Amino acid sequence: MRKSDIGLIGLGTMGAALALNIADNGFDIAVWNRTTSKTKDFHDKAGDLAARITPTEELSELVAAIASPRAIILMVPAGQAVDDQIAALRPLLDPEDLIIDAGNANFHDTNRRVKEAGDLAFIGIGVSGGEEGARFGPSIMGGGKAEYWDRVSHILKAIAAKHEGQPCATWMGEAGAGHFVKAVHNGIEYADMQMIAETYGIMRDGLGYDHQKVADTFAAWDKGALRSYLIEISGKVAAATDPVSGKPMLEMIVDAAGQKGTGRWTVIEAQHLAAAIPAIEAAVVARNLSSQRQARAEGEALFGAAPHHIPHDTLSKDSIEEALIAGKILCYAQGFQMIAKASDAFGWTLPLPAIAEVWREGCIIRSAMLDDMANALREDEDRNLMMAPYFADILKKTHKSLRHVVAQAALHGIAVPALSSGLAYFDAMRTARGTANMIQGQRDFFGAHGFERMDGGDGTHGPWHSD
Amino acid sequence: MRKSDIGLIGLGTMGAALALNIADNGFDIAVWNRTTSKTKDFHDKAGDLAARITPTEELSELVAAIASPRAIILMVPAGQAVDDQIAALRPLLDPEDLIIDAGNANFHDTNRRVKEAGDLAFIGIGVSGGEEGARFGPSIMGGGKAEYWDRVSHILKAIAAKHEGQPCATWMGEAGAGHFVKAVHNGIEYADMQMIAETYGIMRDGLGYDHQKVADTFAAWDKGALRSYLIEISGKVAAATDPVSGKPMLEMIVDAAGQKGTGRWTVIEAQHLAAAIPAIEAAVVARNLSSQRQARAEGEALFGAAPHHIPHDTLSKDSIEEALIAGKILCYAQGFQMIAKASDAFGWTLPLPAIAEVWREGCIIRSAMLDDMANALREDEDRNLMMAPYFADILKKTHKSLRHVVAQAALHGIAVPALSSGLAYFDAMRTARGTANMIQGQRDFFGAHGFERMDGGDGTHGPWHSD
Repeated sequence: MRKSDIGLIGLGTMGAALALNIADNGFDIAVWNRTTSKTKDFHDKAGDLAARITPTEELSELVAAIASPRAIILMVPAGQAVDDQIAALRPLLDPEDLIIDAGNANFHDTNRRVKEAGDLAFIGIGVSGGEEGARFGPSIMGGGKAEYWDRVSHILKAIAAKHEGQPCATWMGEAGAGHFVKAVHNGIEYADMQMIAETYGIMRDGLGYDHQKVADTFAAWDKGALRSYLIEISGKVAAATDPVSGKPMLEMIVDAAGQKGTGRWTVIEAQHLAAAIPAIEAAVVARNLSSQRQARAEGEALFGAAPHHIPHDTLSKDSIEEALIAGKILCYAQGFQMIAKASDAFGWTLPLPAIAEVWREGCIIRSAMLDDMANALREDEDRNLMMAPYFADILKKTHKSLRHVVAQAALHGIAVPALSSGLAYFDAMRTARGTANMIQGQRDFFGAHGFERMDGGDGTHGPWHSD
Repeated sequence: MRKSDIGLIGLGTMGAALALNIADNGFDIAVWNRTTSKTKDFHDKAGDLAARITPTEELSELVAAIASPRAIILMVPAGQAVDDQIAALRPLLDPEDLIIDAGNANFHDTNRRVKEAGDLAFIGIGVSGGEEGARFGPSIMGGGKAEYWDRVSHILKAIAAKHEGQPCATWMGEAGAGHFVKAVHNGIEYADMQMIAETYGIMRDGLGYDHQKVADTFAAWDKGALRSYLIEISGKVAAATDPVSGKPMLEMIVDAAGQKGTGRWTVIEAQHLAAAIPAIEAAVVARNLSSQRQARAEGEALFGAAPHHIPHDTLSKDSIEEALIAGKILCYAQGFQMIAKASDAFGWTLPLPAIAEVWREGCIIRSAMLDDMANALREDEDRNLMMAPYFADILKKTHKSLRHVVAQAALHGIAVPALSSGLAYFDAMRTARGTANMIQGQRDFFGAHGFERMDGGDGTHGPWHSD
């Protein structure tokens, strides 16, 4: 019997899709799932691809079915399940056999697992794109020893999404680098989605658009600078009709957003790195507040509904589009700045332009703008993206609209936390003389923390103590 | 020789002040410092209080000088130094002798140290108020076994600040509860300071106030609803003249704020607790961006200086004051909500009204408003402070000014990240129907995450997949 090119453990939604993708690209794959019926079921439904798939009932059978040196993808829930699976595999594997964690691992865990791998080879890959991406072309961010990545990169590049023929599967660096980049991707995804939801709120509550007009607006934006998967699906979500009630689908969905925690991880890591990602923080907070439905209803009863309605001649659709363009640039600029900080802090050499490239297709935040970001980062990867000529020119044209939208939303009681955090970031980063001199004065006053002087002089304390 | 009532290790700024405070309140105290000359020096300069202070050269001498069962305060740098000091003391102490960590410990470390204490008694106390507070009356937040706290509470209450005779020293709960409450205090302190700095920016850059007018404005505010230590010292900082240049002190202080990390700890813990503290997050980000002076100067060169100037008839001093009142209420509401979440998550019973009380005097955020917060929390500690009748009434009167200030700042390029995050929080929490339905639609579209239906129906997915 011919041995398989690769193995895969965990036939949930993502694992099953990934296995089919691998088989579809001409590789033989052996699969195993804790529940054997799921494995059989998966194989039975694999159609033409079943011939390239070897279902196995025992872990030892799986291992025996794979050509040496073996490579096995784990697609099991992040956390303890990954450690348990590694422990179960270890006695069955030969030295240098490769385990590939393709789940949503916290990159600190991947760092640890790489260290603990011993004579096994271990890499962690971030896989983005949801079920459809996994099946037909995800974006893949790899981390671990480059030589281990190289052993399977032909498979990963084959199954990955392509941008003008270039596969969206890239080795990011040692250890947890791939899962780290994936975490920042998810953080940016949170912020991008939140900013879109804020523009939806302005259209719905501020301008009184019905769902079809909202859908048409997103569809129009999807032809311009905002062209992206998230804008595309926002239009489709807004256009959809609920088959049960016949009402617009959006009207039927409860306004309480879930979160699986990757946004929070990103915020925590930003604190450790002293990276400023206010748009992502605002998005995490917004989801949190969305889940407090009862309290929000009490708040509306107590304070009355916000005035909301913005006169149409005050705020145009185009200025909302420009505000979102500006907000999006600032959000991504923050994310890439965080990646640059991590690269220094962890002794990685994260390839910023290649990260923008790997996100151009396959993943949730894929967009036209990421190609321009890759170009700007290739020119100078140390520069904040908001300062890159291409994006600075766009910001010069759009920041007035961002101001206008934030101001109108503020006056009319429409919450735009992510857009307003983007504006505050822009204004802080284009103001040479800020207001932290007051904070330093306060800190010196109450805690004798000292400060630097504008004239470079030696005195580091104010005269207040002797006052 | 009469034994001392208590011992203290670590005669840095805070430790020395605390030791003098203890002696000043009639207790005998034995002190020790790693550098003996510092101990001698401290004792020599203690004046009348020297008689109550026993300086010691060896750790064993310190231990021998204290009455049994002993109580020893550690005031050494947070982190490894605390563990090292405990290890050095352990062989010298008797079972049930008490170690009190009064430093700025991360509460997770205090949790661990309480567990590891073995037959020693261990409590952690958060001490706020800077050097002057430590010397003449700090605010003290205790955590650990109540019976250990009770053994020294007469000393801690004696040295603490008083509010109408009531000492600002309270047992918060088990283990790291005291240090946890202190961390949230520091987070609120960050946000309060940032909001004040933002109003300073509006006055300086938006309205063209000179330093004296800024000082006078803060002094006037210090007579109203904003009366607080931070407003008082902000006025003094603004009024101060640099003895070197003769210029206003504020003009001579570099606008790059330091941070020792407690703000970041609070943000990290908020993520773990899923608590929404956007004002504190905004303040941490603002300090971070302030330190990027070079990039900010480049940003100003690239984008041009912001217009800044706000016509005087557009924005009054009073509306800025009202905006700060509203922002402050919302910031503290977030902090108390976070404490309530921690109380549940950690199985503590954190006494919210007592926390507001203990912050009324002695600590950096002490203010008149905290007394009103204590009252509101006594009425109902589970209720978000913004919904308490007393504060809801104030918010009803002031939120329009907060809108106006945020809108004007947005239009004129003045960064107000904390104030605008406060407004976004208010608007989210008073809006029954938010925009997270769009986010849930997106999440279901790309990840089949599902959603709840407004009609309570069973279908949890949209029709997009079959489109």
